[in-house]
Amino acid sequence: MTENLFKDMDFIVEIDKMKSTLRKTKLIGKDEFEDDAQHSWHIATMALILKDYADEDVDIDKVIRMLLVHDLVEIYAGDTFGYDKEGYKDKLERETKAAEKLFSMLDEEKGAYLRGLWDEFEEEKTDDALLALSMDRIQPILTNFHNNGGTWVEYGVKASDIRKRVAPIKESSKSLWDYVNKIIDESIKRGYIEE
Amino acid sequence: MTENLFKDMDFIVEIDKMKSTLRKTKLIGKDEFEDDAQHSWHIATMALILKDYADEDVDIDKVIRMLLVHDLVEIYAGDTFGYDKEGYKDKLERETKAAEKLFSMLDEEKGAYLRGLWDEFEEEKTDDALLALSMDRIQPILTNFHNNGGTWVEYGVKASDIRKRVAPIKESSKSLWDYVNKIIDESIKRGYIEE
Repeated sequence: MTENLFKDMDFIVEIDKMKSTLRKTKLIGKDEFEDDAQHSWHIATMALILKDYADEDVDIDKVIRMLLVHDLVEIYAGDTFGYDKEGYKDKLERETKAAEKLFSMLDEEKGAYLRGLWDEFEEEKTDDALLALSMDRIQPILTNFHNNGGTWVEYGVKASDIRKRVAPIKESSKSLWDYVNKIIDESIKRGYIEE
Repeated sequence: MTENLFKDMDFIVEIDKMKSTLRKTKLIGKDEFEDDAQHSWHIATMALILKDYADEDVDIDKVIRMLLVHDLVEIYAGDTFGYDKEGYKDKLERETKAAEKLFSMLDEEKGAYLRGLWDEFEEEKTDDALLALSMDRIQPILTNFHNNGGTWVEYGVKASDIRKRVAPIKESSKSLWDYVNKIIDESIKRGYIEE
């Protein structure tokens, strides 16, 4: 047994906190907030289900790895609601500090690898990152739609805000982009959101 | 947009139920039951962190995929506690029925692929399945240890029961096996469990 194994196990215990880091969205059909562990599992699994709709040649296993770790920094930085303009102002600063604290628990090589996955996701540039980001955007769309508007209604989010937020999907999958727009149109029709 | 995309999205909405499928173990330091989505995220992420301790040459991304879907059947079949001898009698029957119902929501090829991952995990034969199973076994060990014995104390589980339950770890990683035995020994010393 090496010193690194003890570091790894401490890290694994530390990230249990993902299960108590709450998001703004609720579980489908339930009056309970979703947490980051549940969300990360859901979108990693979604990537496996939806991989063939990607327009570009992606490394789906890298996308899945990215999604498993993309929200880890929130155990210290907290979740920032997608439509919270104020919270977004210092999001990067808060999360970068959190990343430094969290990933330095591991040996240098492993910490740098996980940090690299997180950086790639945050930079939103590579095809892998854009598909990962699309999963992260589609999931709350499904949740809110199936919760009669959910947080859209609660926070008065408009269709134009949602369209801006889901824009990265257009760059990774024409089919998924069409699907999401269908959901937005139907949500307007049902009165969940305003144009 | 194809008919299959609608099937995929219905499936993604259906498996949201993983977030309300409760296990017997609690979150570390909290009086809240863990659910299957949280658990699946944790062990898939653990596989990424611990992959280099595998003694055999494993396909770690396949292990991760397996772990993401290994508990899906429980949305219909429920979680069976690892030390519940009665519940284990009809576990396979209940879960096989659940698998048939769940995976038939998808088109044949995709359903068969996910079913194949689940079957491989359940058969506990391949090196990939054994490493996946090891993650599934190690996680509640960590949780119970950090919860002053947790469900071991609650259900009067003995060290010999735990050693039997974690035996698959020995077949996938000598280092992880040593680590887990260290935890069991320390748990006896602290009075969480009896030999």
